[in-house]
Amino acid sequence: MEHLYRLTLSCPDRVGIVARVSNFLAQYNGTITEANQHADMAEGWFFLRNEIKADSLPFGIETFREVFAPIAADMNMAWQVNDSRQKRRIVLMASRDSHCLADLLNRWHFGDLDCEIPCVIANHDDLRSLVEWHGIPFHHVPVDPDNKAAHFAAVSELVMAARADTIVLARYMQILPQSFCTQWSGKIINIHHSFLPSFIGAKPYHQAFERGVKLIGATCHYVTEDLDAGPIIDQDVMRVSHRDTIEEMVRRGKDVEKAVLARGLRWHIEDRVLIHGNKTVVFE
Amino acid sequence: MEHLYRLTLSCPDRVGIVARVSNFLAQYNGTITEANQHADMAEGWFFLRNEIKADSLPFGIETFREVFAPIAADMNMAWQVNDSRQKRRIVLMASRDSHCLADLLNRWHFGDLDCEIPCVIANHDDLRSLVEWHGIPFHHVPVDPDNKAAHFAAVSELVMAARADTIVLARYMQILPQSFCTQWSGKIINIHHSFLPSFIGAKPYHQAFERGVKLIGATCHYVTEDLDAGPIIDQDVMRVSHRDTIEEMVRRGKDVEKAVLARGLRWHIEDRVLIHGNKTVVFE
Amino acid sequence: MEHLYRLTLSCPDRVGIVARVSNFLAQYNGTITEANQHADMAEGWFFLRNEIKADSLPFGIETFREVFAPIAADMNMAWQVNDSRQKRRIVLMASRDSHCLADLLNRWHFGDLDCEIPCVIANHDDLRSLVEWHGIPFHHVPVDPDNKAAHFAAVSELVMAARADTIVLARYMQILPQSFCTQWSGKIINIHHSFLPSFIGAKPYHQAFERGVKLIGATCHYVTEDLDAGPIIDQDVMRVSHRDTIEEMVRRGKDVEKAVLARGLRWHIEDRVLIHGNKTVVFE
Amino acid sequence: MEHLYRLTLSCPDRVGIVARVSNFLAQYNGTITEANQHADMAEGWFFLRNEIKADSLPFGIETFREVFAPIAADMNMAWQVNDSRQKRRIVLMASRDSHCLADLLNRWHFGDLDCEIPCVIANHDDLRSLVEWHGIPFHHVPVDPDNKAAHFAAVSELVMAARADTIVLARYMQILPQSFCTQWSGKIINIHHSFLPSFIGAKPYHQAFERGVKLIGATCHYVTEDLDAGPIIDQDVMRVSHRDTIEEMVRRGKDVEKAVLARGLRWHIEDRVLIHGNKTVVFE
Repeated sequence: MEHLYRLTLSCPDRVGIVARVSNFLAQYNGTITEANQHADMAEGWFFLRNEIKADSLPFGIETFREVFAPIAADMNMAWQVNDSRQKRRIVLMASRDSHCLADLLNRWHFGDLDCEIPCVIANHDDLRSLVEWHGIPFHHVPVDPDNKAAHFAAVSELVMAARADTIVLARYMQILPQSFCTQWSGKIINIHHSFLPSFIGAKPYHQAFERGVKLIGATCHYVTEDLDAGPIIDQDVMRVSHRDTIEEMVRRGKDVEKAVLARGLRWHIEDRVLIHGNKTVVFE
Repeated sequence: MEHLYRLTLSCPDRVGIVARVSNFLAQYNGTITEANQHADMAEGWFFLRNEIKADSLPFGIETFREVFAPIAADMNMAWQVNDSRQKRRIVLMASRDSHCLADLLNRWHFGDLDCEIPCVIANHDDLRSLVEWHGIPFHHVPVDPDNKAAHFAAVSELVMAARADTIVLARYMQILPQSFCTQWSGKIINIHHSFLPSFIGAKPYHQAFERGVKLIGATCHYVTEDLDAGPIIDQDVMRVSHRDTIEEMVRRGKDVEKAVLARGLRWHIEDRVLIHGNKTVVFE
Repeated sequence: MEHLYRLTLSCPDRVGIVARVSNFLAQYNGTITEANQHADMAEGWFFLRNEIKADSLPFGIETFREVFAPIAADMNMAWQVNDSRQKRRIVLMASRDSHCLADLLNRWHFGDLDCEIPCVIANHDDLRSLVEWHGIPFHHVPVDPDNKAAHFAAVSELVMAARADTIVLARYMQILPQSFCTQWSGKIINIHHSFLPSFIGAKPYHQAFERGVKLIGATCHYVTEDLDAGPIIDQDVMRVSHRDTIEEMVRRGKDVEKAVLARGLRWHIEDRVLIHGNKTVVFE
Repeated sequence: MEHLYRLTLSCPDRVGIVARVSNFLAQYNGTITEANQHADMAEGWFFLRNEIKADSLPFGIETFREVFAPIAADMNMAWQVNDSRQKRRIVLMASRDSHCLADLLNRWHFGDLDCEIPCVIANHDDLRSLVEWHGIPFHHVPVDPDNKAAHFAAVSELVMAARADTIVLARYMQILPQSFCTQWSGKIINIHHSFLPSFIGAKPYHQAFERGVKLIGATCHYVTEDLDAGPIIDQDVMRVSHRDTIEEMVRRGKDVEKAVLARGLRWHIEDRVLIHGNKTVVFE
């Protein structure tokens, strides 16, 4: 895989941002392999993502950060530059349902998901064997309904110990405490099994069945304090009909869920998702 | 176009319904060109639609009704049989937006929508020339915000005078009175510009934009007393991204709206939609 | 899972087929849970699939076959009736690519694919560990380019020993000998990584890239003597753009391939696919 | 509609292109409202499209061209800059089928297609009334099978007289002479009623029906000397099944055809399509 630096930034829109960034890169002879920009005219906000060949630059990622910092400061940029060789550390959280977890693990195992998975945390023990076959530590942290705080304390400790930078809720069926959501803001990715904002909360396929919709869907989004209301990364749907029972919807919906989650996570890993307020800019 | 009888029925499920119906048709040598059935196991309800070649039977539609009535009564069927040569009479209602109306008129004009359109009713006069070019009477019935009842009384009269059996709200932006909805239950088709139940009510594209969804959609449904909550006939979606302004969503959404409305209306015309409670069985 | 008998049949179209079949079932008090029919008017051919609750009938599958045989003979039916409890025996064949194989194994493992998988046969040893973790025997049968016959003889023996009724080519990259295709006619399912008939043969993503298409796809079909030309069970596509390299197409196409193969195989297992000439009737 | 300049260019890839272009724009205080770039690493070719607010620049389009020319020359750019207020002049060509033509005319009529349509040319007279209602001149130029050259000579003259910059074949069923294709290279847009490269040539729905595909599609492409083999702008598909006759495929396919053509034409009008060899870069 090519060695790249990924620069992403957002700032108030004004004339000359691209000139400034591209001059900076051209000055050091940096080869841009992919470039995306977006100007939100209504918000007056500008977004940019550049992929640069690491070995076209005369310095490493630390120096990159140093020399770019003054430009960023001058333009009030929220920004980061990441090294594609420093892999993201993604902790997966699950419950009993295997489809999303198994799908992510397979993609990772066979080289289609470029990250580290330091561990999997689940509130049931069912998926231990699946996870351990992949050589990944599995932590079973049960939930005591009378003391959920203990569960989340243990989870929090494991996540810290794993030096995670991202948490993926791969059909982990618990609602996270607000403090945890705030602490990990923009770093927790959930897959919700409906096309949000339809069918927020529990049992969305049951809700969909009751309403008699002709499409079911899934939504990959960042978790915030508000249930199922965080910034949406991606969504997709599939057709259903009067023939489909709830069980059939649940079964068929799995294919949408895993596809949408894998796509959203991949974009996140490749720094393609910029959060702005409660929305995302996705440079896919 | 082939001359067909379209038999649709629903009734409590039990052994022998299909045998009874197919024996009836076989006894008269009726040729079935298309047959669909559905047993809703949870509800214990059975649905059937048969298309029969009219000239394979030794009698006309009236006699069909007479000879089939005892079977239907015996099985507690809600049923009807229609003659494909007796075209549906569809009144279209519109406002200022042309896309759905123009699309339906074109399909009708060039033979892809097999019905009569006795008239178009609109609360603005903008689309008169479009409608009249097709040789269809256009009634401009303005809405006085202080006396909406007068508008709906006039509409009601025009619909009755047109001997309509179906009303299509082709982006007609008024909320119908409850009494009208009740009177025309199962006979008013609306196109809502969102994937319901998301974004009920006014300005769904604005709501979609605010929420930052990655899909916009449209829903074709029967109108009931509850706003945007009636039985759904069809839905579809299209992708949007951070680049799309509200205006762009509105523009692009038109293509979904007109496709979904045309499809749903066609199914209705061909007796493919059976309403049961707040859901539909669609034998497409 | 419910205990069902699945009756499928096809025969020359005539009046009274449905009456005959439904009378037969009603006479024995058989409860039909799902019924599909299709009359191909151009070909004059009739197709039917019924699912019947096994315990609603007073006899087992063998007696079912005996008592139905005279009706079938009388109407020149090609037919079969299967017992949902007698699971299909599916041999999977693979090469080095894991995505389709891993996907099918996971679905099977977690209960979403109702069949037996007596063994996996591959011409490379790479996927042994994956397969064996699922507790399924893995046979590595290498291909000697100078003596392919030996490979296919060994494969044939293994398939027979496994008492397979269906063979799935889950990205098995060898062309099967004609005699093998003939022997297993209608029982070998392949996934081809293009929307056939575009890009027959080797390296379809390369062909797609060269042509500059904006959609890539996958096709699940029965294997016949003619390469990639057998009856199509299902197809699907996804969008690509000028940004996608061949490698990216290959990576992204995997999601379509595995979804289409899983869907097609499921329909096959549930007796939903009837082959007629070089086409299929799919009662999904 | 906002007043914009649309700059598009392609050239051999090298360091500093974006810097050069963005410096140029920043120097004159130009506000970029949309920016897209693409580096084709395999071909070593670079593509760019910028939309600039016209009134943010201190000069008009002619001066823009003058001051940008030296940069373009220095970097061996193929380039153009267009003024959104100088509308494209699109000649539509049709035969008897109305769906694509009616759809484009409606979009134009109601403001969703920002161009001039100086005239419609057809080899049959059927659609005259439709076209003339929109206030657009209609030219009926019949085809004499024994003297097609006369037809094309007349067409050529009309297109020149209309000062067209683009020709759209809206289901115009004639094969254009090679010389005409060469003369209008990159300026003739066709809608082909299949997902190319499947089903090149005549009667693609018949070919699709024969092959038993489960998807039908449409392809919008630039016309070249090779039949149905020019650079693809856009494609889409829809599901079909064993129930669909050829007539039904033809009817349903119309919706894909008109959607794909309208989308492709819109991108062309907005200078979003850059041709490179036999492929397109589409900055949608």
